[in-house]
Amino acid sequence: MSNNLNTNRTFNFSIKVYYEDTDAEGVVYYANYLKFIERARTEMINACDTNLKILHKDYDSRFIVKICNLDFIKSAHLEDVLEVKTSLKKLSNASFVLNQNIFHDEHLILKAEVVIICINRDHKPSKIPDFLKKKIQQLIS
Amino acid sequence: MSNNLNTNRTFNFSIKVYYEDTDAEGVVYYANYLKFIERARTEMINACDTNLKILHKDYDSRFIVKICNLDFIKSAHLEDVLEVKTSLKKLSNASFVLNQNIFHDEHLILKAEVVIICINRDHKPSKIPDFLKKKIQQLIS
Amino acid sequence: MSNNLNTNRTFNFSIKVYYEDTDAEGVVYYANYLKFIERARTEMINACDTNLKILHKDYDSRFIVKICNLDFIKSAHLEDVLEVKTSLKKLSNASFVLNQNIFHDEHLILKAEVVIICINRDHKPSKIPDFLKKKIQQLIS
Amino acid sequence: MSNNLNTNRTFNFSIKVYYEDTDAEGVVYYANYLKFIERARTEMINACDTNLKILHKDYDSRFIVKICNLDFIKSAHLEDVLEVKTSLKKLSNASFVLNQNIFHDEHLILKAEVVIICINRDHKPSKIPDFLKKKIQQLIS
Repeated sequence: MSNNLNTNRTFNFSIKVYYEDTDAEGVVYYANYLKFIERARTEMINACDTNLKILHKDYDSRFIVKICNLDFIKSAHLEDVLEVKTSLKKLSNASFVLNQNIFHDEHLILKAEVVIICINRDHKPSKIPDFLKKKIQQLIS
Repeated sequence: MSNNLNTNRTFNFSIKVYYEDTDAEGVVYYANYLKFIERARTEMINACDTNLKILHKDYDSRFIVKICNLDFIKSAHLEDVLEVKTSLKKLSNASFVLNQNIFHDEHLILKAEVVIICINRDHKPSKIPDFLKKKIQQLIS
Repeated sequence: MSNNLNTNRTFNFSIKVYYEDTDAEGVVYYANYLKFIERARTEMINACDTNLKILHKDYDSRFIVKICNLDFIKSAHLEDVLEVKTSLKKLSNASFVLNQNIFHDEHLILKAEVVIICINRDHKPSKIPDFLKKKIQQLIS
Repeated sequence: MSNNLNTNRTFNFSIKVYYEDTDAEGVVYYANYLKFIERARTEMINACDTNLKILHKDYDSRFIVKICNLDFIKSAHLEDVLEVKTSLKKLSNASFVLNQNIFHDEHLILKAEVVIICINRDHKPSKIPDFLKKKIQQLIS
């Protein structure tokens, strides 16, 4: 069972661009945006009053990215402070879909759609823990 | 004017997975595949008898990724030797679309579709140099 | 002219360990500590009421690491919150030496000694701007 | 028991600089040299007819960097092909010291001295497997 959601709320997380993030074109290297949106997802999990270790140990749950569709709109530069806005597009039993958009001063930098699957220690899809599902819905839908 | 192509030939490039590429799950970190496919694109440019610096200086051309759609199929591990197979999906005047699939021992690891735009020093779309267009077609279509 | 300093004060900066920072051993990959201490240096510059862009544009000053001596004491893990403590060992006209120690819950993770040189656009050593020299001394000595 | 060695032979490994390796200064980002010298060490292990997985599984041996002293001499740039030359400075029972120098067209880019410790699954120092010790000596001393 899955629901399509009209998401209103976003989980917002700020990231400053350091030298490590840039490349010889003077802008953020394209792969590094995947790091930024993963940091935002980790923080979102933390905002649900849990963390990756607890989910791993106590719930045999870990999350892997299955699909990631990226649209690079504008460049970001050294020392820019970026805002990653994460919203819930769809929440199913063993997976969810996030929209993660990165902004700099109201300008859209990157649009990402990310399909995440919950797996167990045998790398099989497994149910997202109920408490987490509830928390995610409270946080970003 | 653009052509849709039935691509038969691929440009193949091998990459060994080092510690830097892995994460605490023991597999290649998802953002690092974007590095791998960029390396393959740079090598493809080199296989066209040119390089990024020449294209930059002599042709005022540089290539940026506009869209990147990733489907993560299987995990790759430390010391795996991966094969990036790049083929041409579409070639237009100022852009092209590549399929970049990563394999490990015949197993598909990642499917990527990458839309690349040619821009000039003012960050405006610009014509792909003719010689390069021809070379790319010879190489991967 | 240079002064050896008995440094008492440190500039402290916190960093959370994300997946991107770890490797297949389950710990922070050794190169990534260099990213952490650079972030701390950038934040230290910001704490001096300036930033890299201003120093670049208005003062023709940029900072490069000349020497970096690293002693890896303990491992750090996913979701650890690390504290980078930066202190001034020596401040000269065109260079300075920092001690940058990383801690996790009072445990020393890494000891770094970093020699930094101020250079101009021609990559020649150049005087550290006076205002910044003063600010650095106020902040971390 | 340890021997100081007059090393004559080096293990040489080539690396091309890609966008991922550079930063907004247009040069290789300083942390990435640590990746390059680790790749060279992994290849050196492979040149000893073994690999990290075998050493891990069959010998309960893994190698960690304890000390790394870096002297940054010159910058490297996009598409430079660098040569990492690794030589043995000292070989002891549970550790060894390497000199790893990176060159570009005969120009020295980086000098690194790296102290490596062999540890077991309990993270305790352990004897370097005899066969490997012999191979390392044959290869780079």
